[in-house]
Amino acid sequence: MPDPLRLGIAGLGTVGTGVVKIVQRKAKLLELRAGRPVTISAVSARSKDKDRGVKLDAYAWEDDPVALASREDVDVFVELMGGSDGPAKAATEAALAAGKDVVTANKALLAIHGQEMAEMAENAGRVIRFEAAVAGGIPVIKALTESLAGNDIKRVMGVMNGTCNFILTKMQNAGLPYQDVFDEAAALGYLEADPTLDVGGIDAGHKLALLASIAFGTKVAFGDMHIEGIERITIEDIELAADIGYRIKLLGIAQMTGRGLDQSMTPCLVPIDSPLGQLENAMNMVVLEGDAVGQIVLRGAGAGEGPTASAVMGDVMDLARGNRVETFGQPARELKPSHPAMASVPAPYYLRMKLQDKPGALAKIAAALGDAGISIDRMRQYGHTDPTAPVLIVTHKANRASLDDALIRMQNTGVLVGTPVTIRIEDV
Amino acid sequence: MPDPLRLGIAGLGTVGTGVVKIVQRKAKLLELRAGRPVTISAVSARSKDKDRGVKLDAYAWEDDPVALASREDVDVFVELMGGSDGPAKAATEAALAAGKDVVTANKALLAIHGQEMAEMAENAGRVIRFEAAVAGGIPVIKALTESLAGNDIKRVMGVMNGTCNFILTKMQNAGLPYQDVFDEAAALGYLEADPTLDVGGIDAGHKLALLASIAFGTKVAFGDMHIEGIERITIEDIELAADIGYRIKLLGIAQMTGRGLDQSMTPCLVPIDSPLGQLENAMNMVVLEGDAVGQIVLRGAGAGEGPTASAVMGDVMDLARGNRVETFGQPARELKPSHPAMASVPAPYYLRMKLQDKPGALAKIAAALGDAGISIDRMRQYGHTDPTAPVLIVTHKANRASLDDALIRMQNTGVLVGTPVTIRIEDV
Repeated sequence: MPDPLRLGIAGLGTVGTGVVKIVQRKAKLLELRAGRPVTISAVSARSKDKDRGVKLDAYAWEDDPVALASREDVDVFVELMGGSDGPAKAATEAALAAGKDVVTANKALLAIHGQEMAEMAENAGRVIRFEAAVAGGIPVIKALTESLAGNDIKRVMGVMNGTCNFILTKMQNAGLPYQDVFDEAAALGYLEADPTLDVGGIDAGHKLALLASIAFGTKVAFGDMHIEGIERITIEDIELAADIGYRIKLLGIAQMTGRGLDQSMTPCLVPIDSPLGQLENAMNMVVLEGDAVGQIVLRGAGAGEGPTASAVMGDVMDLARGNRVETFGQPARELKPSHPAMASVPAPYYLRMKLQDKPGALAKIAAALGDAGISIDRMRQYGHTDPTAPVLIVTHKANRASLDDALIRMQNTGVLVGTPVTIRIEDV
Repeated sequence: MPDPLRLGIAGLGTVGTGVVKIVQRKAKLLELRAGRPVTISAVSARSKDKDRGVKLDAYAWEDDPVALASREDVDVFVELMGGSDGPAKAATEAALAAGKDVVTANKALLAIHGQEMAEMAENAGRVIRFEAAVAGGIPVIKALTESLAGNDIKRVMGVMNGTCNFILTKMQNAGLPYQDVFDEAAALGYLEADPTLDVGGIDAGHKLALLASIAFGTKVAFGDMHIEGIERITIEDIELAADIGYRIKLLGIAQMTGRGLDQSMTPCLVPIDSPLGQLENAMNMVVLEGDAVGQIVLRGAGAGEGPTASAVMGDVMDLARGNRVETFGQPARELKPSHPAMASVPAPYYLRMKLQDKPGALAKIAAALGDAGISIDRMRQYGHTDPTAPVLIVTHKANRASLDDALIRMQNTGVLVGTPVTIRIEDV
């Protein structure tokens, strides 16, 4: 009988427990598919005594994940603790130093320390696999790194935070304001301990940064990403967007331009009848565009016990089969430094504003846009009872710098009440 | 420098030429990603002198693909000729006998001779990879075999013939009858030399049979599949379906039931607002359902030079990286015989019929359905000027045997004019 692949699992939350269940319940199927047994040698978590609904007594227990990571009877260290630093980082380093491969769901660790970790793995002749870190059960890392390995990647896009998509679709469908739905999501346990990670776009930004590194062969550059959260999205914007045929999504876009790598994770308007526009609730979707393959769209659950454990097991099974791909799909030392784009890719913009209700106000705004070199696709003034007039403008394609210029010119007209809301439009 | 992976390519149609272009134009990128160069040693096609828009003089030319397949300077035989027998089969056998791995886009060969070929590969310690054979550029074979390796697969569904989907959506959008759109598709070169392969559902059926084998660990059983083409779909059916919220798609479904493997490739009604219902033109979509991952939806171009060449290159790059997965994801000799399901999975059905316009006709039909144990969800009689009344019935879930019984009982009422149209409904 061939040697088993022996796992050491650190972190026994829902995902870790889900992995243990799969290994226990499907031993025969996994062995048949991998050609060798997949077993668990040891586990580690904060509390040994907690009842997790799975039997753990057959496995060695380590209080310290670092000790777990370097055990002799562990071939693959499975890191499911999370956190960009602290025990997760220390244990991953220990595992690589001890010559283990690593399977992780930790997007924060890799988005912040990915280059260092990947080089450490490479020096040890090991790999870090992280399918579970991006878009849960959707096999996007594998698709990008392996299936599309013959493509120049043109663009990667995605809705990769289920909580944000839940909030935005619930606002839309129930006509509720942001805060009400945020409170509901919190009550349902959908939010991270620090909710800014979710609604601030940071968690999704981590994921996009990892995809961009693989797609463009560049070092992970999370710090260069333009990130805006969904906190400022109002029900008015959602309803006006619907009125002109769009949905608002927290959309990540990574694209290599002639002037550098453009990475953004921001609310965007996408067409209602597009796959992204149709994406409801906590679902995730990733769009990959390659020069040969064209556009590939992948959709599935982005979080939860089953989907994330499925992704972890996909990586484990690759390693059990002896299939290894370098952490970012090519040697880490060959990854190019990523230069942030000097200018964002031009896009149409949605502008919502309130104007003083007096003759010539709209003309002044239109002139300000024109002076900034931005032309108007559509403009609507809505009926109103208060003394300010709500106005919606959809521009033709403009770059962000021209838009910023226009916003200053618009303020200078003196007819604006408050600050306009600006949201990028992606006609995908 | 590490040894190159050397290809021998048989078949230089659009896909073969596409592969040559990628290998030539992206040599550096491929080497960086695979850790070794990917080169072409020899090519083979029917006509040596045809201008294919790529330079081939650096490669040895073989008139005979069997000779190509066994050349010493070939590591991987890339079979892009097509056809379930003849040269494609002979050359694939020769390649395996000579100890080469095989990458192929040939669904017919594998759907008919897959078990024999997979065992031959296994005996030689080689693999056959065939991502390009199913749904073009969509990485469905890899997702099912590798990413979902920790799942029990519950169901696989897909729209996997772009030509059929083009015809059905064009009928829908332009309100044209089947024959007109078929003729247009033929003029556009969308149809196989034998169009029955496309519109008869056979090509898509081949693909589904391969997915079912991987999903359920069973020997390929194309012969057991229930196949119906789209030839009998009328514009009336498309419009009535739309009227009740559905689109008609040529949908493949493979599902393991308690009573055997149920595989069907037939026109089905799917909800307009579902991902499958939204799929337009020549696009393909595959839906994978696993016990852990839930539902994953993959969408992309199912044919054409770029997408298919991209899939071929994904397999080539796996082999260049030293990553091998057994042909059907587990040892071929361990694949279980597939028992065709004794009864199909129950589903609601769409029934369109014409009745003699006389009192009690509709009641007799309703009674016939009831006598067969089928209950009615919705029934509509449409206005008419001719002496027959068009009637649409949507049933609750029924199995195919009960439906067949009902159809006989309905004929026996004597009020039917002609034969009812029956189409399965999948509320995915």
